[in-house]
Amino acid sequence: MAAVWQCQAVTSTSTGAVRQGSLRQLNLAVVLRRIATADRPPSRAEIAADTGLTRATVSAVVDDLIAGRLVAEAEPAPRTGAGRPARGLLLAGDGPAGLGLEVNVDYLAACVVDLTGAVRHHVVRRADLRPVSPADALDRLARLAAEARAAAVREGLTLAGATLAVPGLVGADGLVRLAPNLGWRDVAVPALLAGHPLVEPVDGIPPLVVENEANLAALGELHAGPPGSASFLHVSGEIGIGAGIVLDGVLYRGVRGWSGEIGHIPVHPTGRPCRCGGQGCLERYAGQEAILTAAGLAGADLPADTAAARLADLAAAGDPATLTALADAGTALGVAVAGVVNLLDLDTVVLGGGYAPLARWLRPPVDAELSRRVLTAAWSPVTVRPAALGARSAAVGGAASVVRRIVDRPAGWLARSG
Amino acid sequence: MAAVWQCQAVTSTSTGAVRQGSLRQLNLAVVLRRIATADRPPSRAEIAADTGLTRATVSAVVDDLIAGRLVAEAEPAPRTGAGRPARGLLLAGDGPAGLGLEVNVDYLAACVVDLTGAVRHHVVRRADLRPVSPADALDRLARLAAEARAAAVREGLTLAGATLAVPGLVGADGLVRLAPNLGWRDVAVPALLAGHPLVEPVDGIPPLVVENEANLAALGELHAGPPGSASFLHVSGEIGIGAGIVLDGVLYRGVRGWSGEIGHIPVHPTGRPCRCGGQGCLERYAGQEAILTAAGLAGADLPADTAAARLADLAAAGDPATLTALADAGTALGVAVAGVVNLLDLDTVVLGGGYAPLARWLRPPVDAELSRRVLTAAWSPVTVRPAALGARSAAVGGAASVVRRIVDRPAGWLARSG
Repeated sequence: MAAVWQCQAVTSTSTGAVRQGSLRQLNLAVVLRRIATADRPPSRAEIAADTGLTRATVSAVVDDLIAGRLVAEAEPAPRTGAGRPARGLLLAGDGPAGLGLEVNVDYLAACVVDLTGAVRHHVVRRADLRPVSPADALDRLARLAAEARAAAVREGLTLAGATLAVPGLVGADGLVRLAPNLGWRDVAVPALLAGHPLVEPVDGIPPLVVENEANLAALGELHAGPPGSASFLHVSGEIGIGAGIVLDGVLYRGVRGWSGEIGHIPVHPTGRPCRCGGQGCLERYAGQEAILTAAGLAGADLPADTAAARLADLAAAGDPATLTALADAGTALGVAVAGVVNLLDLDTVVLGGGYAPLARWLRPPVDAELSRRVLTAAWSPVTVRPAALGARSAAVGGAASVVRRIVDRPAGWLARSG
Repeated sequence: MAAVWQCQAVTSTSTGAVRQGSLRQLNLAVVLRRIATADRPPSRAEIAADTGLTRATVSAVVDDLIAGRLVAEAEPAPRTGAGRPARGLLLAGDGPAGLGLEVNVDYLAACVVDLTGAVRHHVVRRADLRPVSPADALDRLARLAAEARAAAVREGLTLAGATLAVPGLVGADGLVRLAPNLGWRDVAVPALLAGHPLVEPVDGIPPLVVENEANLAALGELHAGPPGSASFLHVSGEIGIGAGIVLDGVLYRGVRGWSGEIGHIPVHPTGRPCRCGGQGCLERYAGQEAILTAAGLAGADLPADTAAARLADLAAAGDPATLTALADAGTALGVAVAGVVNLLDLDTVVLGGGYAPLARWLRPPVDAELSRRVLTAAWSPVTVRPAALGARSAAVGGAASVVRRIVDRPAGWLARSG
């Protein structure tokens, strides 16, 4: 016997009285989730058996989901016996989609992910945004978003929500408190983007969510990475170093949404001064600038992903300075990650962003520090692996998070399209 | 309008069919939780209004809860108008209770917490357990537990479950994988305690849970600390240093239950060698032995809490070596905690265990490192405070966790007593 928990929304009024929320909303969500998490397209009868709903209810709910372009029927299964074969149900690839956006130090990105999780559009535009004002950077981003929207419309998709990744600390209401490497402080992103409608408004789906880039990169990895990794630390190595912590499939955001600043874990407390005002922060030993400097490429002013590719080329060619630089960075990273694993007891560490193409050289020193410093390493090793999506993970993670909201609460979307 | 979620257990059989779980179980839990979380004893009518259940249902459920000694009626309120005053309902102080046990390096402890959260019995017995075999240590603990049980029975309480705190890594099924400062490795605690029935068996309440001491100390703080601190880092400074992480009122246990090893965060990666095989671990700079050595008390072989009291006396008297030792320990602790706060974005750090009586001297250097090293410190300071319970927190936290299980699932207890 397996116990499951079914949750039911109940709306409580200010007078303290309670009324049952719409049963239809609950049934829509239960049936859609069953379809979304299936190994193979389930039939209406299978959904009824698994959820405890009657077959008539399931049929009515499925009709609504198909009419709303959330669900489609699979090709009929081959006849295996008497009667008409049952048609399997799957998520629709021509309904709502999520828009993922990213502003980073040296590029802008926009991507579209449909309900099935497929990336339908993805554009990255190089641009050094450090000398550009936030308003101008967001104007450029809005143009990229408009292109993505047009591409989505051409494919029959409707953008139902957008998520913007920013390499910084994001407060409530999308205020970017601090993005040190972009030079942003207290930038009210939603206000600056207000003149650019990004998506169709859908009840229950926020039109724009602004989120830390490393957090969204971790969600991108959850979306695209190997199945079964529901708890992991995702470390994005760029000019700054950010981490996303996923626990049981859910992003851990911290008390104020500011978790993941792994770049400012002190690894040599009396060591190099850091921009943040601290001293000996990981970023000063394993950030991209530190690696480039140690490899003799200081001042080359390469875009972040070009820099990673260049370092990978040099390391593959056996350049001694680059190999030493990567070994030292990996050791510093391993020291910080060992502390994290001792504290949080995670069994998987994903090297993402600019670290992904360098994982071949970073992994051995990281592994060495973990073996040496993690109390439980002897009987329960930690897996260190490169990210599935690399530097493009944040935009995909943002778009996927929109899609997940629609699957969790389909009623808002159906009210719009119905 | 405030939205709440009501959860309902549904039991799924292996055939895939689903039947509705007992509505009575759900109603018992909903009503008991309403009573447990109330600011003042609510009446049956208030519970009906708040939960959406009918008054007849609430009355029947409350009758069951009173008969099962989970709920009691408060003294009648003074008459304020016409009619009989409604009687408020509160948790019963004469029904089930939790047994909290602790084995530590130099003491054993047992305590009893009743359903209202009151500590009804608490005994600590000094003993250096390092030279003692695990079996002998657990035999002594069982005698302490039997005394606690007799005391509970004399007060009309029934022990419904026990939780044992151990300063080490605990695996599934209560196997202590490693408790370095006790010298335990792969100790099967439940098997060794099998000859000593600790509690009355109750359906749904595990008779014995073995858990890391620092984790339970954090739960003790959640239970006894100021209201409103639902997310915090609790650091227990003993011979080892352990941390408990509470997120939104729930203990974070890690992927394998081994979280919280803050003592092995590297603070000086090329520094002092550590027992764990690593180098420069926090424990070597801020653990009790390091502080005693720096204060000129090395080899004094004081029991852990005596040592903390002795250090506090010396510091209060202005002993320069002790003040320097505490300042240096606080700085090392601040470096490690700054990394944790950067990573997890917590706003409260509780100094527990042996750190509690030393908090007056440890806090300033910890605060200084946090101000300097936490990226968000400028606009969102972190509160550092001593634990409410100090070194006795783990046993209380363990007993309180039993009580919480009963409140969450009262049906098992009622089936036993009914």
